[in-house]
Amino acid sequence: MHGFPLFCIFALTNKTMRIDIITVLPELIEGFLNESILGRAQRKGLVEIHLHNLRDYTTNKWRRVDDYPFGGFAGMVMQCEPIDRCISALTAERHYDEIIFTSPDGEQFTQPMANTLSLCENLIILCGHYKGIDYRIREHLITKEVSIGDYVLTGGELAAAVMADAIVRIIPGAIGDEQSALSDSFQDNLLAAPVYTRPAEYKGWKVPDILLSGNEAKIKEWELSQSIERTKRLRPDLIQKIDK
Amino acid sequence: MHGFPLFCIFALTNKTMRIDIITVLPELIEGFLNESILGRAQRKGLVEIHLHNLRDYTTNKWRRVDDYPFGGFAGMVMQCEPIDRCISALTAERHYDEIIFTSPDGEQFTQPMANTLSLCENLIILCGHYKGIDYRIREHLITKEVSIGDYVLTGGELAAAVMADAIVRIIPGAIGDEQSALSDSFQDNLLAAPVYTRPAEYKGWKVPDILLSGNEAKIKEWELSQSIERTKRLRPDLIQKIDK
Repeated sequence: MHGFPLFCIFALTNKTMRIDIITVLPELIEGFLNESILGRAQRKGLVEIHLHNLRDYTTNKWRRVDDYPFGGFAGMVMQCEPIDRCISALTAERHYDEIIFTSPDGEQFTQPMANTLSLCENLIILCGHYKGIDYRIREHLITKEVSIGDYVLTGGELAAAVMADAIVRIIPGAIGDEQSALSDSFQDNLLAAPVYTRPAEYKGWKVPDILLSGNEAKIKEWELSQSIERTKRLRPDLIQKIDK
Repeated sequence: MHGFPLFCIFALTNKTMRIDIITVLPELIEGFLNESILGRAQRKGLVEIHLHNLRDYTTNKWRRVDDYPFGGFAGMVMQCEPIDRCISALTAERHYDEIIFTSPDGEQFTQPMANTLSLCENLIILCGHYKGIDYRIREHLITKEVSIGDYVLTGGELAAAVMADAIVRIIPGAIGDEQSALSDSFQDNLLAAPVYTRPAEYKGWKVPDILLSGNEAKIKEWELSQSIERTKRLRPDLIQKIDK
């Protein structure tokens, strides 16, 4: 049931990854980035995550980063100059594998994309906010536009946190139990089987007998059949990917 | 270009919505929930968001919420009892429209689902963590399982924050400019047109002439044609939805 690509990742990765996140509201995700798996992975030296406040790259005394859109549309648009200055300052220091912009019309973020990005050395993630960013930045500076799903968020900060979490947790050593990551949903295009823990009976709700049997081979068989049954019922599109 | 359903939402909603989020790591998203749109919407009385630490509902002195899975699998599983106690305490106080569990194998979270959920009065969002929650909770207590995308996160906390942000921002009054929300991507199954702001020329990169013309009718026409062209190129699946 284990996908081959993930083993490759475990074998190949050994450098410290660096993720630079550019945002007008660093305080939105600062807490998240320093806690949990992301905090632990940083303390272990597996990844460096740097938050950049876009306002630090403005040249006006109000530290303004946005202006009204041309054409009389509603909302505010993030201007070219501070974004260009921030990205230029970063790319002058090192090569970046991707300069990512989080946008609902970008390429869908998926587990295979997370696996691929977790092999990168340096990534920039630019968070949009307000009505969006000046389109010229997207045309000239961004190398990859990514969407975490078909819904609109207030800003790209949550999308950046989602991407960082999904990418960093599969770096070897980031979570305690690599076997656990290997059996996650999507790593083999199958949904995970149901899991149960003690007590074996709670309020009359019982754990399936097979799991209490101690018969390892039968349990493995049950797990696979549950995964397949759940995937067929809930996500038939994933089964089609396996058949191809 | 404006979707009818969203106007309905603006017309019908007038109660304060309540969202209860149950998690083992409230500190992960506490900062996010109190900042930006979510913080502002709470201060305006449009929504109440309550974070519940699952450990407060344990009965053991170590405040443990997880145990090893039956069947010898890897990872740790969140136990029935604290979750049941927490949900019971909440449902004893008020009726909940949905008790949501965030899980990568749940129903896909989309803009139409965000619109529907924004009409609810009371929502519970249970965040999974570790290898998952005891499946009996999903069978007996959860009314809706939701996934924010085809990737695995360390926990459901970011998914809960994503859902809360997408839901709350379309409550009337949450963002300053409702016209801006109405023209967002997905509200009419079309991706948004490119946006530009001053200066009209930056480093030789120019804004399309039409946007500087002042001809409102032509600009509207350009906007629609850009939306359609971008959707056809980047997300042909959305166009099919319109045709149906």
